[in-house]
Amino acid sequence: MAASSFSCAQSLCLTSRGRVSFPGGCVLKRRNSHLVFASSLKSNKDVSSVSKVETLLDSVRWDDKGLAVAIAQNVDTGAILMQGFANRDALATTISSRKATFYSRSRSSLWTKGETSNNFINVYDIFLDCDHDSIIYLGKPDGPTCHTGSETCYYTSVLDSLETEQVAAGSRLASTTLYSLESTVFQRRAEIETTTESGKPSWTKRLLLNQDLLCSKIREEADELCRTLEDNEDKGRAASEMGDVLYHAMVLLALKDVKMEDVLDVLRRRFSQSGIEEKGSRGKQKS
Amino acid sequence: MAASSFSCAQSLCLTSRGRVSFPGGCVLKRRNSHLVFASSLKSNKDVSSVSKVETLLDSVRWDDKGLAVAIAQNVDTGAILMQGFANRDALATTISSRKATFYSRSRSSLWTKGETSNNFINVYDIFLDCDHDSIIYLGKPDGPTCHTGSETCYYTSVLDSLETEQVAAGSRLASTTLYSLESTVFQRRAEIETTTESGKPSWTKRLLLNQDLLCSKIREEADELCRTLEDNEDKGRAASEMGDVLYHAMVLLALKDVKMEDVLDVLRRRFSQSGIEEKGSRGKQKS
Repeated sequence: MAASSFSCAQSLCLTSRGRVSFPGGCVLKRRNSHLVFASSLKSNKDVSSVSKVETLLDSVRWDDKGLAVAIAQNVDTGAILMQGFANRDALATTISSRKATFYSRSRSSLWTKGETSNNFINVYDIFLDCDHDSIIYLGKPDGPTCHTGSETCYYTSVLDSLETEQVAAGSRLASTTLYSLESTVFQRRAEIETTTESGKPSWTKRLLLNQDLLCSKIREEADELCRTLEDNEDKGRAASEMGDVLYHAMVLLALKDVKMEDVLDVLRRRFSQSGIEEKGSRGKQKS
Repeated sequence: MAASSFSCAQSLCLTSRGRVSFPGGCVLKRRNSHLVFASSLKSNKDVSSVSKVETLLDSVRWDDKGLAVAIAQNVDTGAILMQGFANRDALATTISSRKATFYSRSRSSLWTKGETSNNFINVYDIFLDCDHDSIIYLGKPDGPTCHTGSETCYYTSVLDSLETEQVAAGSRLASTTLYSLESTVFQRRAEIETTTESGKPSWTKRLLLNQDLLCSKIREEADELCRTLEDNEDKGRAASEMGDVLYHAMVLLALKDVKMEDVLDVLRRRFSQSGIEEKGSRGKQKS
């Protein structure tokens, strides 16, 4: 995590098109990609910070319209939230404000996601690709990103559409493996609550309906994972047992109405404060 | 997962610009966005499949150059592998071949990632965004995606760059929370193997150096997770205990040289075959 990297440009902010300012009132105006001092700078450190931002902005390969693709990604789940375009000012604003900001091609203006909905995307890190013409805003959304109210803008599966008579809209969010599994487990829980089924329930439903069985399985799978180390079993066995631990633990999380995103949020907060090891150490002292 | 959706267009393949063919030899030629029959179709089902692909391709809002942004994402880890552009033929080829295919603007031609390196991206699902002008290829890469040999193309952190004298290239992959944590744990393991340290080792290193301690912690944390359900503890406690389970289990995985991606690969394979519940059931019968 780049928690330690977040301090560098914190004191900069973009006041208007092409201007980078400091909270202390110093304003820099960019003209032809060069900075012109509008008033004296507070310190050499400030000059250095502005210079570094300008160097960074210069390193981006903006296209003939001055744009680069900008992708907003959830730092915890990895979900691609939305994709827009950034120009120089949009990237500078994102760096200074830490709110994902884009250039709206339809309105020909800067646009900070959340400025009307309040669902900002709080940016923790920014990455350029190998060609320096594509940008990732890695951040945490305050709420649903899509203007439709959907968690992300990607909810139309091409392959689902090809199985139906028309382009299927809004049916299924693009999800990676862990979140597809989570979605299935939560769906099983909802089915139990809303329908009465005849026939033999699935294994997931049996676990959801029997807390003793579920907890005995979690303890058993954790033990089996440990034994892959203690008994020097092979890598494939360790991966398989960890899969069992994850799956059964996620069934418990579904019963507690806890999402993996909540768990990862906990880990990120501990991790970025070097708190994992501190927490572990406390646990050790307790035990 | 869309494992069940993968059969629909499997029998289609794109032979050349604007042509969609069937293995049986029937070739369709697209002219002005309409399909013209070049020979008789094998069945009404084939006609329907081609028609659905065309409807889908028609639904994309291609820009004035006939392009849309296409983002390749690792289906297991969520890592954004690369970003390119797709035209109509690139998307049609990706649908039929299930290999991520783009339109190279510099070479003005279709380009299937891996056609020279053999590092294909095997596409399991494709998503459109709410505006239908941005595409996700959700897939599994055969090897490193970037032409530099990097796992993904996004390895230049803007915020790291702002802390150094120049734009930092290749220093750190864009990683979400789980993989940042994994990277740290693997780094601690490497430090143990390569350096002799004085002073008190970190908690992670103590776990790595003491398998008895590590396994007792994993069993203890699994038990504490179960007790959040058994003792009806709050959601925050469940998320926190699951964080502990994940972290300690990942230390064990590092000792076994197993990545979370391997674990998720196992889960996806079971899951897409509805095998999770089958596996669980087998486990139950054993115990």
